[in-house]
Amino acid sequence: MELAIQQAAESFAEVFAALRESSTVLCATLTPEDCNLQAMPETSPAKWHLAHTTWFFETFVLGEYSADYLPVNPLYAVLFNSYYNGIGEQFPRQQRAVLSRPTLAEVLDYRTTVNAAIIALLNDMGHPQRDFIHARIELGLHHEAQHQELLLTDVKYNLFQNPLLPAYRQPAEAVGLSEASDSGDTIAPLRFINCQGGELETGYAGAAFCFDNELPRHIEYVAPFKLADRLVTSGEYLEFVTAGGYRNPDYWLADGWNEVQQHNWQQPLYWGKADDQWLEYTLNGLQPLDESVPVSHLSYFEAQAYAAWAGKRLPTEAEWESVAQQQSVAGNLLDANRLQPQVAGNAAGTIGQLYGDCWEWTQSAYLPYAGYQPLPGAVGEYNGKFMSGQMVLRGGSCLSQAFHIRSSYRNFFYPRDRWQCSGIRLAADS
Amino acid sequence: MELAIQQAAESFAEVFAALRESSTVLCATLTPEDCNLQAMPETSPAKWHLAHTTWFFETFVLGEYSADYLPVNPLYAVLFNSYYNGIGEQFPRQQRAVLSRPTLAEVLDYRTTVNAAIIALLNDMGHPQRDFIHARIELGLHHEAQHQELLLTDVKYNLFQNPLLPAYRQPAEAVGLSEASDSGDTIAPLRFINCQGGELETGYAGAAFCFDNELPRHIEYVAPFKLADRLVTSGEYLEFVTAGGYRNPDYWLADGWNEVQQHNWQQPLYWGKADDQWLEYTLNGLQPLDESVPVSHLSYFEAQAYAAWAGKRLPTEAEWESVAQQQSVAGNLLDANRLQPQVAGNAAGTIGQLYGDCWEWTQSAYLPYAGYQPLPGAVGEYNGKFMSGQMVLRGGSCLSQAFHIRSSYRNFFYPRDRWQCSGIRLAADS
Amino acid sequence: MELAIQQAAESFAEVFAALRESSTVLCATLTPEDCNLQAMPETSPAKWHLAHTTWFFETFVLGEYSADYLPVNPLYAVLFNSYYNGIGEQFPRQQRAVLSRPTLAEVLDYRTTVNAAIIALLNDMGHPQRDFIHARIELGLHHEAQHQELLLTDVKYNLFQNPLLPAYRQPAEAVGLSEASDSGDTIAPLRFINCQGGELETGYAGAAFCFDNELPRHIEYVAPFKLADRLVTSGEYLEFVTAGGYRNPDYWLADGWNEVQQHNWQQPLYWGKADDQWLEYTLNGLQPLDESVPVSHLSYFEAQAYAAWAGKRLPTEAEWESVAQQQSVAGNLLDANRLQPQVAGNAAGTIGQLYGDCWEWTQSAYLPYAGYQPLPGAVGEYNGKFMSGQMVLRGGSCLSQAFHIRSSYRNFFYPRDRWQCSGIRLAADS
Amino acid sequence: MELAIQQAAESFAEVFAALRESSTVLCATLTPEDCNLQAMPETSPAKWHLAHTTWFFETFVLGEYSADYLPVNPLYAVLFNSYYNGIGEQFPRQQRAVLSRPTLAEVLDYRTTVNAAIIALLNDMGHPQRDFIHARIELGLHHEAQHQELLLTDVKYNLFQNPLLPAYRQPAEAVGLSEASDSGDTIAPLRFINCQGGELETGYAGAAFCFDNELPRHIEYVAPFKLADRLVTSGEYLEFVTAGGYRNPDYWLADGWNEVQQHNWQQPLYWGKADDQWLEYTLNGLQPLDESVPVSHLSYFEAQAYAAWAGKRLPTEAEWESVAQQQSVAGNLLDANRLQPQVAGNAAGTIGQLYGDCWEWTQSAYLPYAGYQPLPGAVGEYNGKFMSGQMVLRGGSCLSQAFHIRSSYRNFFYPRDRWQCSGIRLAADS
Repeated sequence: MELAIQQAAESFAEVFAALRESSTVLCATLTPEDCNLQAMPETSPAKWHLAHTTWFFETFVLGEYSADYLPVNPLYAVLFNSYYNGIGEQFPRQQRAVLSRPTLAEVLDYRTTVNAAIIALLNDMGHPQRDFIHARIELGLHHEAQHQELLLTDVKYNLFQNPLLPAYRQPAEAVGLSEASDSGDTIAPLRFINCQGGELETGYAGAAFCFDNELPRHIEYVAPFKLADRLVTSGEYLEFVTAGGYRNPDYWLADGWNEVQQHNWQQPLYWGKADDQWLEYTLNGLQPLDESVPVSHLSYFEAQAYAAWAGKRLPTEAEWESVAQQQSVAGNLLDANRLQPQVAGNAAGTIGQLYGDCWEWTQSAYLPYAGYQPLPGAVGEYNGKFMSGQMVLRGGSCLSQAFHIRSSYRNFFYPRDRWQCSGIRLAADS
Repeated sequence: MELAIQQAAESFAEVFAALRESSTVLCATLTPEDCNLQAMPETSPAKWHLAHTTWFFETFVLGEYSADYLPVNPLYAVLFNSYYNGIGEQFPRQQRAVLSRPTLAEVLDYRTTVNAAIIALLNDMGHPQRDFIHARIELGLHHEAQHQELLLTDVKYNLFQNPLLPAYRQPAEAVGLSEASDSGDTIAPLRFINCQGGELETGYAGAAFCFDNELPRHIEYVAPFKLADRLVTSGEYLEFVTAGGYRNPDYWLADGWNEVQQHNWQQPLYWGKADDQWLEYTLNGLQPLDESVPVSHLSYFEAQAYAAWAGKRLPTEAEWESVAQQQSVAGNLLDANRLQPQVAGNAAGTIGQLYGDCWEWTQSAYLPYAGYQPLPGAVGEYNGKFMSGQMVLRGGSCLSQAFHIRSSYRNFFYPRDRWQCSGIRLAADS
Repeated sequence: MELAIQQAAESFAEVFAALRESSTVLCATLTPEDCNLQAMPETSPAKWHLAHTTWFFETFVLGEYSADYLPVNPLYAVLFNSYYNGIGEQFPRQQRAVLSRPTLAEVLDYRTTVNAAIIALLNDMGHPQRDFIHARIELGLHHEAQHQELLLTDVKYNLFQNPLLPAYRQPAEAVGLSEASDSGDTIAPLRFINCQGGELETGYAGAAFCFDNELPRHIEYVAPFKLADRLVTSGEYLEFVTAGGYRNPDYWLADGWNEVQQHNWQQPLYWGKADDQWLEYTLNGLQPLDESVPVSHLSYFEAQAYAAWAGKRLPTEAEWESVAQQQSVAGNLLDANRLQPQVAGNAAGTIGQLYGDCWEWTQSAYLPYAGYQPLPGAVGEYNGKFMSGQMVLRGGSCLSQAFHIRSSYRNFFYPRDRWQCSGIRLAADS
Repeated sequence: MELAIQQAAESFAEVFAALRESSTVLCATLTPEDCNLQAMPETSPAKWHLAHTTWFFETFVLGEYSADYLPVNPLYAVLFNSYYNGIGEQFPRQQRAVLSRPTLAEVLDYRTTVNAAIIALLNDMGHPQRDFIHARIELGLHHEAQHQELLLTDVKYNLFQNPLLPAYRQPAEAVGLSEASDSGDTIAPLRFINCQGGELETGYAGAAFCFDNELPRHIEYVAPFKLADRLVTSGEYLEFVTAGGYRNPDYWLADGWNEVQQHNWQQPLYWGKADDQWLEYTLNGLQPLDESVPVSHLSYFEAQAYAAWAGKRLPTEAEWESVAQQQSVAGNLLDANRLQPQVAGNAAGTIGQLYGDCWEWTQSAYLPYAGYQPLPGAVGEYNGKFMSGQMVLRGGSCLSQAFHIRSSYRNFFYPRDRWQCSGIRLAADS
């Protein structure tokens, strides 16, 4: 899907329809009950994601550019508004699981109705605001891609609370999983690659889509540094676990150690042990822990503690971006349909796994670039108002749409968050 | 349904099958998502009620008396055990809504499987423990009747959290609702009937089923008293509301006033006001407040505050029982299928609405009768361990199976609980 | 101190002055910092008790009967009003430790000022409301006696939170402690005494002072029962502890088991173990556990669990009172100045320790007697509004003024409360 | 006090003694009760500050370098260890107010004892680790200066909770306060000064004392920017308040808006309104709001919201430092003994108030500089482990010792914290 460059109305409508359809397909293995789960406030029911992304198009496209459009249900503006105060009040986030209605079937109808209206609008060749409509729909499609990833991480978290440990899908549905995840793989030792520093330009530079928080393109001074040639594997992280890493405050930030103790963290979120064997819960079901693939679903605190234990550090976002600018987006992304990280396959001396597999925690707080301006209007709440307390992650994961990822893309989560597909890229001073 | 007197195996199996079927029927208007809701820890998903009651038969009947029976799923003993420590650990009560699996369809299959095994056991005429089996199944049927009422009150509470205010069923499905609830009814002023005191015998006295907490039959000394001839109506309670009853601490117990302030209580749970009209949310949907029917869904604190405001008090359970012993069980119970209270229709000078309509808060704490002995084994946890902090309610409600109610029946809830179908019977000193 | 019968103005003023002074004396061993502690919301700083009891006289005596009296500081009405909504708003209870001002010295001045005004009022022989004044001051003195006991239990709890375990006073200050608490005492096995039942009159019957909640005198029917001839000792309770009583839910009420787990209760509040020796923190400092004296500082849940483990039960308040009516008030009370329970010394075949040593949890909820009427006005909030969720305790403790205790006296605390000097009297069915 | 350059043992001992004494002097107006307050977990009792700073010298100087030294009380290592896991366990931070013992008098004795031992160590001219001792004592003195500021902000917060609003000291004790705070001052409009960007060196560069988190000196690229010539005044901030700034989410970060709503923020922490007049609670007592002095005691969220409302932004720490490097430390610091901000007095065209008055929130998260290394051993926990979730503040305040402040000094607090003396310096893009 090469969304950014497809500007012809006809094919754009097809792209729109295809991406929208792909959200629904992600729920194909789920029951209506599954789609209504919210095991913690940070997660949302799959059904809510399906409805919210639809409300986004309804509100920010149809509501602004389609004169005759009537909302499907005025109360949906309360139920499915996530956090846009500029639009109006919101149903409390942590209570989304009490919304049994509209049912999954009704939400799917809602999607169909809104999709048709969007396509009709796209087909209105004479609309005076055609460019704005395109831009806004493009924003909506990137928004949808973000929620696809959230839908998958939320479903994983929610199903995991059930002692029955239901799988999101049967392993047989995971394309190419068996070959790739052969846990007998030997994997080359992690090496550090010297990277040049200096005055680097970071932030989005092209003419296609980007989020407002990737702008403006600006200069960062970066000292020479070293970057690991791949992500840290589960096997490497297991050494930290078995060395008592979760019992020793020396490696942890104070707030992180507080989380460890308060929530009794003893290993990564989805790891467990049965009969002396380490297991990992994945979207493809419970599996023996594959030590050769990148460790995932770590908080920033865990990533930072591992780095401290290993005598290294995490990269800054400028460091990361300076390297990633030199590679095109390719890797184990959602399009590969594996839904879990895979063994690094890059050639010696090169830096692999920059895109896909796991989001990579950086040591940079999520803050505005010098000169940052949010989008005007309520969509300006999309990114800017979250610029405190969160850390930047880079590079996308096995749950990210390829079209959605760029070297300048800034994802952000709280340092305690561990339900995302987030892992560790080590760095070091030169 | 005259359960207690049907001892012949054949008809007992029919009674069993019918009552079990009636639980499923209660869910006929609900979607799978509806059946998975739990808006507060005290409520359980409808699906959980369906599974738990089944687990009760599986554990306490098949597990004890059916040698070859294999549990449908060993983990169900964790998921669907409510609070029986004698059986084993329990999935945390407040997290039942995260159990999307087993699905509703799978739970219905579970019911079918267990029902068949129970009926097979009932048909085993030569079983050496036939009497114990009968007694245990009878306990299970009363248990099921309790959960039918909880299922309905929980569904009501859970659906009510949704701004869409979905109805449990359409009013058209409510038999005879329109005639009865004509809010233009004039209703005779509440009167107090003089009741004789003295040494009264209370507690269950018959030979049929009762719970352990209704025993032993024993003597209570009761001074002469007066009892209201009907329940307090919504119209009467509305006077308390409009007189500022929820803003004046004078009428409230200290713990009650704390609830009022902490949760900002301003009127009964299901009341609201739109365009100067009072409305009430019912299982038959949102309706104009019917001032002639008993006020319901009150906490003990509200019932007590109303009584204080009215210059009266609530009856003790001994007072209530002494009067109820003289009436047979009849009234607006679940069998009437109204699912909401109705106008009192008793003749002047008689005491009406003792059974059905609303559970009646008494001024008695839920404590053991002198000489109380819980049932042996894990079923002994059914009633006895809850004997602190709760108050007794009497008489059943419009959501109670008629066969399940007796004059000696002791229901119990915390004084803050307001999601049950609970109302006010006033009393006074002579 | 025979307070109730001293009606002559002169001696009454002396009684007033003496009791007021004795509150101050209780703080003689405490530093200003000690007097400002509040380690949990249920406890209050000693300084606050000294101020609140003074405010009580200022408000309910001087404010009502002394025309020219001006309050020492109008804000004290907010700071030192405990819970009288009829008087006005209250500084939040759980924040009393942030009140460094008025200082202890200023509060002692406040006491002096108010005491002088009260005595002047008592000396006003021609005051038209002389009888009301006497009655109100008598209420105030009983109120002061209650707060003396709370002051001591609160100080004990507050000092206990400090790892330095400071003693309230040095053992040398405890009169006669060494003789009485010789832990080598052999103590006779606990025996049950048969008690007659029938229609018993309970509630206060005399002409002297009582609280409103002891009225009216009324009939209770009590079946014949057995009552233990002394309190349960620490040694007997230790058997329950070492038998795993705190790890077995079988003995506990559901709410009690919840407390055990939530707060990790493993033994009584003030017990600990060092080098395999059991120790107990007392107002006279840390001591080896004396197994021969009554176990104290238990919650209702612990008392009930012990009784269940022992195959007995707790008495009802009617049972207890029917026996206590036959004894005059005498025992190890505050006047003995031991400040901890002592070994039972009653003759075989008699029931000992009914008064003093420990408050005795009954199996009765704190509820109004039939015909109960609270006092008129704001003092009506003294007792009545607490009649939900609490259990009755009887008999006073080693921290209670003797003049303050009666056979009809009803103390009340929540079943989870364990910082009072509360113990176990067992009962059984006949 | 020119601490960093005084290396001769004799005068250094005098400096040590003087600074230690000045902590005690700060408590001269406080009662023992005042010194024991802790109104929220973030604050500590004044007495605890006095003890903790003493424990710091005892542990990190005497414990490491004085062979024969015996701790005053081994339990103090638990009571007065703030957060050094490398030393051992800590008494829970939020419960420091329950430590009535050691009393204030005992803590002052503790100070005297430790001071004497430190001075004896300083006088030991032949000690082989003399340089290390000097360095560690210097760290301890800077530590003491930090706690002096915390002591004052904590006392202010703690006393403010009392409806009596006691003053820390009488206004008469505030040197020169009356002249300076004449609220009739007209103050020149705030202007922005153009500042050059480029590759700037930041971080500590000298040979004297600095904290580990100011190192290493390193290059930051900064685009040209504008910096306000003084701090924002209370009068300017009042415009934001009266314009509804606390009711409009548009200006706030999402986490900040959450704080506003959850804690019902309506104005700065110490502001209030009586009879239509704005008042401010200060260490010198309650005063009419002085609109000409810098607004203080703001959270980052409030500072950021004000900047957004004003169409500006906060500076980054590199921007701030690049300007501050050009000025020597001078301003309204603790040595001026005003204890509250004063009117800016800098010449037009210059940037004033960089040092003193209020800590200035920057838009930079508190993160390690590239190449950062914490100190070895337990003192390495001093700064490094707090590098998540907090924002950097610069420049010191009217409560900071002058010797303690540098252009490279990085203070840090959570964005919600508002009890520090923190204000607003605006910046803008060029």
